[in-house]
Amino acid sequence: MRDIRTDMAVEIRENLPERQEGVQCEERETEAGLKLTWVKIQSQEGARAMGKPMGNYLTLETRQLEEVTPRQRAEFAREIGSELKKMMTEDGNTRPVLIIGLGNRDVTPDALGPKVCEQVFVSRHIKEHLPEAIDSRAGSVCAIAPGVLGVTGLETFEVVKGIVEEVHPGLVIAIDALAARKTSRIGTSVQIADTGIAPGAGIGNHRRALSRETLGVKVIGIGVPMVAYAGTIAGDILENALGASADAADMEQLLGAVYAAKGGELIVTPKNIDFLVDKTAELLAKALNTALHPTISEEEIRAFME
Amino acid sequence: MRDIRTDMAVEIRENLPERQEGVQCEERETEAGLKLTWVKIQSQEGARAMGKPMGNYLTLETRQLEEVTPRQRAEFAREIGSELKKMMTEDGNTRPVLIIGLGNRDVTPDALGPKVCEQVFVSRHIKEHLPEAIDSRAGSVCAIAPGVLGVTGLETFEVVKGIVEEVHPGLVIAIDALAARKTSRIGTSVQIADTGIAPGAGIGNHRRALSRETLGVKVIGIGVPMVAYAGTIAGDILENALGASADAADMEQLLGAVYAAKGGELIVTPKNIDFLVDKTAELLAKALNTALHPTISEEEIRAFME
Amino acid sequence: MRDIRTDMAVEIRENLPERQEGVQCEERETEAGLKLTWVKIQSQEGARAMGKPMGNYLTLETRQLEEVTPRQRAEFAREIGSELKKMMTEDGNTRPVLIIGLGNRDVTPDALGPKVCEQVFVSRHIKEHLPEAIDSRAGSVCAIAPGVLGVTGLETFEVVKGIVEEVHPGLVIAIDALAARKTSRIGTSVQIADTGIAPGAGIGNHRRALSRETLGVKVIGIGVPMVAYAGTIAGDILENALGASADAADMEQLLGAVYAAKGGELIVTPKNIDFLVDKTAELLAKALNTALHPTISEEEIRAFME
Amino acid sequence: MRDIRTDMAVEIRENLPERQEGVQCEERETEAGLKLTWVKIQSQEGARAMGKPMGNYLTLETRQLEEVTPRQRAEFAREIGSELKKMMTEDGNTRPVLIIGLGNRDVTPDALGPKVCEQVFVSRHIKEHLPEAIDSRAGSVCAIAPGVLGVTGLETFEVVKGIVEEVHPGLVIAIDALAARKTSRIGTSVQIADTGIAPGAGIGNHRRALSRETLGVKVIGIGVPMVAYAGTIAGDILENALGASADAADMEQLLGAVYAAKGGELIVTPKNIDFLVDKTAELLAKALNTALHPTISEEEIRAFME
Repeated sequence: MRDIRTDMAVEIRENLPERQEGVQCEERETEAGLKLTWVKIQSQEGARAMGKPMGNYLTLETRQLEEVTPRQRAEFAREIGSELKKMMTEDGNTRPVLIIGLGNRDVTPDALGPKVCEQVFVSRHIKEHLPEAIDSRAGSVCAIAPGVLGVTGLETFEVVKGIVEEVHPGLVIAIDALAARKTSRIGTSVQIADTGIAPGAGIGNHRRALSRETLGVKVIGIGVPMVAYAGTIAGDILENALGASADAADMEQLLGAVYAAKGGELIVTPKNIDFLVDKTAELLAKALNTALHPTISEEEIRAFME
Repeated sequence: MRDIRTDMAVEIRENLPERQEGVQCEERETEAGLKLTWVKIQSQEGARAMGKPMGNYLTLETRQLEEVTPRQRAEFAREIGSELKKMMTEDGNTRPVLIIGLGNRDVTPDALGPKVCEQVFVSRHIKEHLPEAIDSRAGSVCAIAPGVLGVTGLETFEVVKGIVEEVHPGLVIAIDALAARKTSRIGTSVQIADTGIAPGAGIGNHRRALSRETLGVKVIGIGVPMVAYAGTIAGDILENALGASADAADMEQLLGAVYAAKGGELIVTPKNIDFLVDKTAELLAKALNTALHPTISEEEIRAFME
Repeated sequence: MRDIRTDMAVEIRENLPERQEGVQCEERETEAGLKLTWVKIQSQEGARAMGKPMGNYLTLETRQLEEVTPRQRAEFAREIGSELKKMMTEDGNTRPVLIIGLGNRDVTPDALGPKVCEQVFVSRHIKEHLPEAIDSRAGSVCAIAPGVLGVTGLETFEVVKGIVEEVHPGLVIAIDALAARKTSRIGTSVQIADTGIAPGAGIGNHRRALSRETLGVKVIGIGVPMVAYAGTIAGDILENALGASADAADMEQLLGAVYAAKGGELIVTPKNIDFLVDKTAELLAKALNTALHPTISEEEIRAFME
Repeated sequence: MRDIRTDMAVEIRENLPERQEGVQCEERETEAGLKLTWVKIQSQEGARAMGKPMGNYLTLETRQLEEVTPRQRAEFAREIGSELKKMMTEDGNTRPVLIIGLGNRDVTPDALGPKVCEQVFVSRHIKEHLPEAIDSRAGSVCAIAPGVLGVTGLETFEVVKGIVEEVHPGLVIAIDALAARKTSRIGTSVQIADTGIAPGAGIGNHRRALSRETLGVKVIGIGVPMVAYAGTIAGDILENALGASADAADMEQLLGAVYAAKGGELIVTPKNIDFLVDKTAELLAKALNTALHPTISEEEIRAFME
């Protein structure tokens, strides 16, 4: 069976039989035309079938971010923030929220996480050292981009674990760029999962995932697809073309052309990926600000941040 | 007939009948294992068949740039510089060489031209204003990245034409990032053409090309493929798969999936494209320095530039 | 007499006798608390005394940009735009406006001009090629950052002159970072002059200035001080301290300490200069948009630009 | 007494009486003309007088970095590396070295530490996961830039402490941009201290310093002055001018002019500070590579890193 690579729970779900034991789906459309899909993995059997840990995966979809109006984008940010807030289920928790911007800031589509950290309203140091200088309604938020193993020589998990032990956050939110199977999802879908996140691995090494099991605190993962793998797309096209007659060995040979570049895996992105990453980081930062400082307006936050 | 998009003369050539009137090919391999291919378009008939103006198109190929050793890369730079020098055919010309870095510095794979400009040894102002401060063997070189129409509101041609009229260079060298049909050529092939270059258009609007006809001075174009179009690759795979049974309408439908992203055309690049663009800019800057200041060593140039 | 370096007409004026033949001053304060000062150089005698060409120099002052609220900053942008509009005196002119972003984008305080170009709403190409895609109220605007002599080997004047000859704008607006004598003016004062601008020279080589005389079209110069020279400030402090007893030779020796760094002239900036340059570029871009597309709202422009 | 601000032990030493109990000085000049000065704080009395913890502070001085030839710069890197190696005193230690790049990557003169991290040869992950892919002579090195409190909401100490607890390095090396009293030291002096470093504070809050006391592992601090404070320089000039007649109140008033900018403290830097920071980061990265992978040549390291 060929390698279909995606980090999106909705896409993995589409590949399973309609009635998969332990996996439940729900959909809703908002008045503003956003589509929300919940994939709920409710048993170990479901987790095995999905190749993902048990928990809830929400996908919010809009049209391509750059085509929507500023007003629609604001609506999208609000909706993401509102769903994120529901998932936070803070019960009077006053410990800080730690935001982790995963990915490599020097690789364009992978810079989403670090860019969100730069734009989110960070308040923990003010609340601790200058509480009178900040609105008491503001939450306590800190944010760091730990870099990637190939650049730092440190596993993301080691860095995050160390910080969690020092800072004792009440919640960790990890932001990452994802890979999708369908290119139409690039920059248009946001996945929020209450199961945490496995940096650098769609279906990977769960020991090093950022999750309640490994960090001892709730971890929400937020991801937006920024690329698709060329091999996966090519395979999909071939399968459609060859249908039942598709033969694994033939396909591998045909796909050879796509894997021919020696210099690192081939990815597919829109031409304007630099711009799209910036826009998406702005969107997520707004959504996070809405969820983490719910009674403060966007304009007030902007004034604080300047 | 489906749209095969490439800026490489060697790739267009591969698509034509073996004996194409007015198009001639030559190949040579160097001791260091570099492959050089000349495509010479020698008549209007050849130009029509190729969809490119008459002239000489040289392609130098190596293995993926990042895999080769620093020594091999230096050898590659020398070879490019040496072929470039032959093409310059300066006959005691003392007028400056004007380097044009085409492309958008804020779009990763398109930033090749602007990045070369930043690294090439620029000397014209020193030779004019402080001749005693510079080695008399240094050529007179100036370099500018004019930006792209969508950002400046100015056609590249307008900017370059204006500067040429003021500066009266003896030669223009334009650097651009290209699209290839085969992903294996990304970052591994360099095309040098003595016919100039058409910014933002493989086969485009020749009125606005940078060429002797439009600028009144010889124009050498240097390009390196940095992307392939997803549609072209997908089409190639499909054609291989479906063979003789391929039907245009079917193919279009199958390809629909690849074009589905609304936010700008889909491109295919290696994952490390940011790094690859930097490395390639460094390579071309070295090659240009070799060709334009032939008797000055690389170390001397580095000392000048600091 | 020691070297007092400033690019601000108001500061040069302060150094002259109160009644200087050929130089007239006017002041006004707006309701929002902005201070406007006009220095009008009305004769050759005034020009000699000021060391600046005849014409009108308007300075708008606010408090330090980063301290004002977003609302006050918007008010400041509107006021700059409104004064700029008055100075444009377009009489049914439909030729495009060409914006020139002077300075070096890789030198933090000097990057103001290039950064303004990136943020201003550029429309000329749309109006020419896709007029139906743009509001007919939009002006025709193009913008380019020509780089600096030391990087391109091209004089700014050569590049701008060349483009003007090709594009035939009805007005040129040149943006530049300035040096002030008083550090309190850094990031808080905007100078608008209807005499053009001399790149890289407070009082410099007028042959190479950008002005109606050299370009054949009206040139408005907009500058914001981003640095002060350490030598000028130190001299001011010394003069205050030593008063009448100040002796030129002594002062020079005392100032030696400040000039001791061999690696380029010493400048004084606020610690947050990177941030201040970004904020100021945003301010000027808004002011330009207001002046050049007067009947289109800021939100509409933002929607166009995305 | 007025505020003299410097992070350099040699400059603090110059301000003390020649025979200061508990502080010892030594000097040496190398054949290549580098000047090395050791300030050794040997008692609590010396520490109080110096306002710095007990330990050894070595300063290496060269001429302004950008003026020296590439050859001299290589010599300087070797000398720094050699002294650093002596200070490391590793006794068969095989635990990794953790490099901390202090400072804010978005503030030009403060970006030194983060830029060094980007250029140093990081090997820990290869030695652990792919030992056969790396020369066995290579040391185990990891490197991270933790950001600054105002951006992350996290104290540098918290982040570093957390990572140290996870990674258990045998040595921490912290890199920081410093402030000097004399502008001639900007970019020309390197201070290496075996006492660790106090981020964001010349003489500050020792509880949060990075040191053996706080981290439980040896900490070497490496700093290079990138700025001077305008207030300190101005005070020095005034003191020279007014001599014995200097009166504190007068001086404060005179200095007022320099502190007038409301938008953050005023600093003095060379005009080419962006370039100087890049060059200095390159220098320190080479010095670190020399010290941490002593038997591997620079060219071999470059080949590894590509």
